[in-house]
Amino acid sequence: MASAVPVTELIVRKRDGGELRREEILDLIAAYLADEVDDAQMAALLMAGVIRGFTTDEAVALTEALVASGDTIDLSALAGPTVDKHSTGGVGDGTSLVVGPLLAAAGCQLAKLSGRGLGHTGGTLDKLDSIPGFRVDLTPEQLEAQVQTVGLAIAAATAELVPADKRLYALRDVTGTVASPALIASSVMSKKLAGGAAHVLLDVKVGDGAFLPDPASAVDLAQLCVSIGESHGRRTAALVTDMSQPLADGIGNALEVAVAVDTLQGRRGGRFRELCLELSAGALQLTGVQAAAARTQVEELLDAGAALDRFRAFVAAQGGDPTVADDPWQVLPAAPVIGDWTPGDGVVSAIACRRIGELAGRLGAGRRRQGDRIDPAVGLELLVRVGDRVDDGQPAARVHARTEDDLAMARAALAELVELGDAPVDPPPLVHDRVGLE
Amino acid sequence: MASAVPVTELIVRKRDGGELRREEILDLIAAYLADEVDDAQMAALLMAGVIRGFTTDEAVALTEALVASGDTIDLSALAGPTVDKHSTGGVGDGTSLVVGPLLAAAGCQLAKLSGRGLGHTGGTLDKLDSIPGFRVDLTPEQLEAQVQTVGLAIAAATAELVPADKRLYALRDVTGTVASPALIASSVMSKKLAGGAAHVLLDVKVGDGAFLPDPASAVDLAQLCVSIGESHGRRTAALVTDMSQPLADGIGNALEVAVAVDTLQGRRGGRFRELCLELSAGALQLTGVQAAAARTQVEELLDAGAALDRFRAFVAAQGGDPTVADDPWQVLPAAPVIGDWTPGDGVVSAIACRRIGELAGRLGAGRRRQGDRIDPAVGLELLVRVGDRVDDGQPAARVHARTEDDLAMARAALAELVELGDAPVDPPPLVHDRVGLE
Repeated sequence: MASAVPVTELIVRKRDGGELRREEILDLIAAYLADEVDDAQMAALLMAGVIRGFTTDEAVALTEALVASGDTIDLSALAGPTVDKHSTGGVGDGTSLVVGPLLAAAGCQLAKLSGRGLGHTGGTLDKLDSIPGFRVDLTPEQLEAQVQTVGLAIAAATAELVPADKRLYALRDVTGTVASPALIASSVMSKKLAGGAAHVLLDVKVGDGAFLPDPASAVDLAQLCVSIGESHGRRTAALVTDMSQPLADGIGNALEVAVAVDTLQGRRGGRFRELCLELSAGALQLTGVQAAAARTQVEELLDAGAALDRFRAFVAAQGGDPTVADDPWQVLPAAPVIGDWTPGDGVVSAIACRRIGELAGRLGAGRRRQGDRIDPAVGLELLVRVGDRVDDGQPAARVHARTEDDLAMARAALAELVELGDAPVDPPPLVHDRVGLE
Repeated sequence: MASAVPVTELIVRKRDGGELRREEILDLIAAYLADEVDDAQMAALLMAGVIRGFTTDEAVALTEALVASGDTIDLSALAGPTVDKHSTGGVGDGTSLVVGPLLAAAGCQLAKLSGRGLGHTGGTLDKLDSIPGFRVDLTPEQLEAQVQTVGLAIAAATAELVPADKRLYALRDVTGTVASPALIASSVMSKKLAGGAAHVLLDVKVGDGAFLPDPASAVDLAQLCVSIGESHGRRTAALVTDMSQPLADGIGNALEVAVAVDTLQGRRGGRFRELCLELSAGALQLTGVQAAAARTQVEELLDAGAALDRFRAFVAAQGGDPTVADDPWQVLPAAPVIGDWTPGDGVVSAIACRRIGELAGRLGAGRRRQGDRIDPAVGLELLVRVGDRVDDGQPAARVHARTEDDLAMARAALAELVELGDAPVDPPPLVHDRVGLE
């Protein structure tokens, strides 16, 4: 509180609906990290901003301040267009495992820094951990060298990357100040900017399984993220996509890897494959490829097995067993108890997406709090989606459990979470909107 | 943060405009004092409340929670009606020094716990300290015994009285969360409730020299304080009074005691005497005396010297030199440099009240921060008020300074702070409103 920053004045201005200038925000975050502004002052300021709203200029400056708090990755020595892809998180949302190799096959270079899952959404690192031998702790040099040769590397973000975001997030989590578009966007974009890619494609999820329930607020968040990225000289775009039901057929760590491999092998279609293609084409568009050509190119690369080859090389480069790309179930850990759930006859009218994610977590696939151990083998295979007809005796889901009790618990839960009706139901749109793309 | 209180849920509810229940507020403050809710969480909640507003029920419950955090004074053994009087603070606002003895002379019993001044407003304890020998550190037993015999005691509030208010105020001070009617009212009223008096008269100041600039917000605050007091079983009322110019002729510690003695001796009239009578009559009304009778009674007691006698006994009981009641300038410390300020010819059209208070502070009469030493002798005598005519060569103020430089500084400042014009000006009303009184 002995700061040179007139912090109480800034708090009062924000409280009364005013705007903070770029220099004030940079000074404020620097003073916070130097313990000259305390948690209570920062919490008061954040709450004022959550209620009054932050301007786009404030979000841009806050992002700059967060990036300035730590290390940044320099990818400028790489030859190809550097690309990053980020999802705001959902259930059965393992698109990175397909989009990464697919974009690498298209000549892009992806140095992806990722995180662990928390709550009902999974983390890319947790999924990759289910591949025996796979290492996620790469040094910046190892990361860059691998991207140079393979086109793709996925590593754990270090504590030195955007430390202010980690500290702010921990504060927001306990002070009711998470729900702010500007705070969410600056948190997401600070990590993308620090990651060094020149092109950033965002997948902003909307629906019950995402943290944004309605398309309008998701589009607002997407536009804010795109404004922040473009203000900092990155080509940035976003798809706003459906999370009203789980995306992939697999929900759980090894299960999601298996579904990704199936998709890379061309043996699985559906909404997951379609979104992987849409995201990959969108990212290619950012690098200058025309829309129709981008879509054709990514479909051809996927169908020709080029993305699968790139996935195999990527796994091998990070110490994982590359045969996961050929026969995933020979390599991935399997759950001891597997059983189907057959709901009877009807049309799927709704799936409680968030609670499906939480059910997978209860089986052991997720964490309730940081540091919890997860079980890579367990989870759910969801064999139907909204609008699908189920016949009597046809399984709608397959449970991968640690115990018979868990299987019984999951079957009972599924009966509550998957709703069947008689009338035909239109499936929800997969892509609600595009921001920054033609 | 490991509290049983679902604090984040409470913060989010308040952030979104909801209301906290009484039990939730009691639990929250108890958990805060037990360090189970941290400063950041409390600051976020306070900011949400400052912006969204607290309901009267919330303010009543918060006051209860603050009182419950520490000791309370039990005055139920006293024979007469117990009365407390509180001003929200202003410049030249030493009415307690007259109202206290006057109410004691009328048969009331006042056990007043008071504080020190900070910023541009003076504190009653600082004023009393200028009387040689006067002690303000009474035990609860000494306080009660003195009230029993003299009818009046004024002591320093101990750290055990409403400790939660002290902690909250320190937090609010650095987090931009001072400006909330509910937080201000609960802070004021918690101390009045803990002080034990059955009848509470508030003097809510409004104008440039107070912290509330407009009458409407002052009336709102007064009504809230009265609601809180009545909800807790205390007969409570408030006068909303003018602080657009200094109240008493003296601004400074010994100077304010001297003006009070002059008033008790019947040798000084004006707005200060008038407000002392209004406040005393208002307090008597609370104890059941009819309005006109109350006014007549306090005027008669003041004019008969009964209040002066009570003041003399009160000073003697607390170790001070009682002859201050007979010839204050033989007893009180005098400043070494005294000089008049003569502005020339005109009608006083405005006095910058807050800055007059700050000027007295710069002369040494006030504190910039807690712990600063004050100079009891210095200050200003203000010889005119808005609407008064000043003739050429007639002094409008007298400066009591430590040095010649200070005198010159004060004269230059006064020329900026007291505005003279040609046209006649109506003086501002002394009492803007009454809340809870006929």
